[in-house]
Amino acid sequence: MKIVTKRDRVSLRRRVDQGTEEQRAIVQSILDDVKANGDKAVLAYTEKFDAVQLEDYKVTKEEMEDAFASVDGEFVEILEEAAANIRSFHQKQSSQSWFDTSEDGTVLGQKITPLEAAGVYVPGGTAAYPSSVFMNVIPAQVAGVERVVMVTPPGKDGKVPDGVLLAAHILGVADVYKVGGAQAIAALAYGTETVPAVDKITGPGNVFVALAKREVFGDVDIDMIAGPSEIAVLADDTAKAHEVAADLLSQAEHDARSSSVLVTTSQALAENVQTEVEDQLKSLPREDIARRSVEDYGMIIVCDTWEEAIETVNEIAPEHLEVITADPIQELGKIKHAGAIFLGPYSSEPVGDYFAGPNHVLPTNGTARFSSPLNVDDFVKKSSVISYSAQALQKNVDKIARFARLEGLEAHARAVETRKERWK
Amino acid sequence: MKIVTKRDRVSLRRRVDQGTEEQRAIVQSILDDVKANGDKAVLAYTEKFDAVQLEDYKVTKEEMEDAFASVDGEFVEILEEAAANIRSFHQKQSSQSWFDTSEDGTVLGQKITPLEAAGVYVPGGTAAYPSSVFMNVIPAQVAGVERVVMVTPPGKDGKVPDGVLLAAHILGVADVYKVGGAQAIAALAYGTETVPAVDKITGPGNVFVALAKREVFGDVDIDMIAGPSEIAVLADDTAKAHEVAADLLSQAEHDARSSSVLVTTSQALAENVQTEVEDQLKSLPREDIARRSVEDYGMIIVCDTWEEAIETVNEIAPEHLEVITADPIQELGKIKHAGAIFLGPYSSEPVGDYFAGPNHVLPTNGTARFSSPLNVDDFVKKSSVISYSAQALQKNVDKIARFARLEGLEAHARAVETRKERWK
Repeated sequence: MKIVTKRDRVSLRRRVDQGTEEQRAIVQSILDDVKANGDKAVLAYTEKFDAVQLEDYKVTKEEMEDAFASVDGEFVEILEEAAANIRSFHQKQSSQSWFDTSEDGTVLGQKITPLEAAGVYVPGGTAAYPSSVFMNVIPAQVAGVERVVMVTPPGKDGKVPDGVLLAAHILGVADVYKVGGAQAIAALAYGTETVPAVDKITGPGNVFVALAKREVFGDVDIDMIAGPSEIAVLADDTAKAHEVAADLLSQAEHDARSSSVLVTTSQALAENVQTEVEDQLKSLPREDIARRSVEDYGMIIVCDTWEEAIETVNEIAPEHLEVITADPIQELGKIKHAGAIFLGPYSSEPVGDYFAGPNHVLPTNGTARFSSPLNVDDFVKKSSVISYSAQALQKNVDKIARFARLEGLEAHARAVETRKERWK
Repeated sequence: MKIVTKRDRVSLRRRVDQGTEEQRAIVQSILDDVKANGDKAVLAYTEKFDAVQLEDYKVTKEEMEDAFASVDGEFVEILEEAAANIRSFHQKQSSQSWFDTSEDGTVLGQKITPLEAAGVYVPGGTAAYPSSVFMNVIPAQVAGVERVVMVTPPGKDGKVPDGVLLAAHILGVADVYKVGGAQAIAALAYGTETVPAVDKITGPGNVFVALAKREVFGDVDIDMIAGPSEIAVLADDTAKAHEVAADLLSQAEHDARSSSVLVTTSQALAENVQTEVEDQLKSLPREDIARRSVEDYGMIIVCDTWEEAIETVNEIAPEHLEVITADPIQELGKIKHAGAIFLGPYSSEPVGDYFAGPNHVLPTNGTARFSSPLNVDDFVKKSSVISYSAQALQKNVDKIARFARLEGLEAHARAVETRKERWK
């Protein structure tokens, strides 16, 4: 992991895979096919891409219960405790409809309505990610979404990982379908005989999933297209080098394009973390991925002043930011851009990935400048409410008509003026 | 305007102009050019597309003041009153940062931070739209955005409409630039020597503007791509046909692809509105546009039951919905999908376009199923805050490590476990 100064820092943005023209064309044809042919197309693509022939691709109640039974009770308890923590945090995010009244009789307000149906994409592969199920489903459930639908690609044996089913079962999600890739996104966006259409699709996936989400955006809502994960640690000389190194590597092991950055004013810490990273790398099972990540996208930035360090962190706008300093709460007001902020030495990043409660679906690629963690507001929509009174209209009708005419919209002016007859 | 039953209703979705391959290629080359060459490229495109040679394209303080002086004081007062109403409504939308504490010392929370800079596109053409300036700028200002930047295409005389400058001046927006089209979106997204880069771009525009916004999404945030405007009126036999007709036509005059729909259980109202629309059309200055709109996208849907009428409205998910019935507040809970809901006979739609206070930037094309009016939350972002205590970590470290290992992420487990030394 190289040590650089602020001036030498390279930009971390734009590591999102945009896909090739060929990939885009493939995705478009899959979307069109599933839209036109429903289940038939879905099953054909599943055979083609997942190498398995399925007839019914909805996970049965028995499969869910078997998954639940396959895991020891202690682990189920850990998952249930994590789910309860996540639910508790997200419940505090809930917004309420509100109204404001005037003495003239006018009522103005904002009505909050949950989305009717939400779809969650859970990636396949060898590892199961129950935490991803929790983080995508719970905000939707807390928002009051009636129907949460989950899709995940089957293995060659036609099964999906127990960990995913277990997580779904704990949350009471009954709609789980064995389908992945662009065909899964198409099924969620347009519906098939088996899969109900949803209003919003969230969850990470490979480049085909990402391209398909971009393409259906507008017909349904989507979450942000996630890039590789990122961590920045802002630390002074009170930080312990081996803890900082371990936290940096926790993100580096995700993906060879993940980014781990230490920002500090302490040359001693910089050098000790560099040594620790090298030491700890050697014994990691995913050493190869983590090593490529820290070599290509990792960095230790030594700043001359603390102001420069803060500025650097804000320029990076990291997905995860750890603040390990003598008095971390003091820094909170200075941090402008970060998806999640971890304060103090006990707030090691994985605490937030699994257990503390806040969401782990966070803005990457510098989008923390303008994006937020996945949250309950993402699963509701607002409607303005205007109940204008006779008195209010009588007082303001000429102003409104004049405003409309200035904009060249005569029918607008006449619409409000038709009401004048009512008080003649 | 044709009268149909629910069964005959045609879908209104998907009238958004997706652009041609050629248009997409043009937009891409403009974006690349402005990104690489800044002001030089901007001015070249302005000369090419707006047929005017500019040197300095920032609107001067004198131009702003001249625009302000060009309008009579009474009209300025109307604009100021409208701006005050809009500001007052949006102030009620503001969210606060919050924290939740545990007795073990853990603090979890959500920090709200305004975006640093927002850009507003104001369309050109013969008419000036001060209301569009208000509706895009005020939520950003209320959110606490430090810098609001406005762009609008110049006419051949190198000027921009007084109405737009006047509105900007009333709101205290000093950064106004004479640039339109895809080159304006590029300037806002990437910055030039003259135009500061922003974090979010809002405001409607032609197909080149829409395509450019789609393309820069991810580098910056954007609002939804707006389709032609829509109104649905849900009415019983207490509604007056000439008022309903006038309100329908107020949206029809916007665009030949605008959609105006009456949903009712009253055959008498249906027929009377049909006659009134025909009568009122004849005297409208924008008769041609409005006539094409009601013929191609207008409809009077007569339902057998009130439940069917409600269902129809929810299927349409209109941008604007008027409820003109004996007791409109009773219907509010049944309306699931609408951008803005206007209750009662005095809440004529233009009341909301200009004056009442709620935003007129609303979801179109059925996206009210999952999207909201432009609002203050669109100009802030959230960051999760996690301050875990020693006690909490000690209690939960083994659970977190086990969860991480189940997901195959050993470095995650080790990161939290490094802290164990602290309480040995």
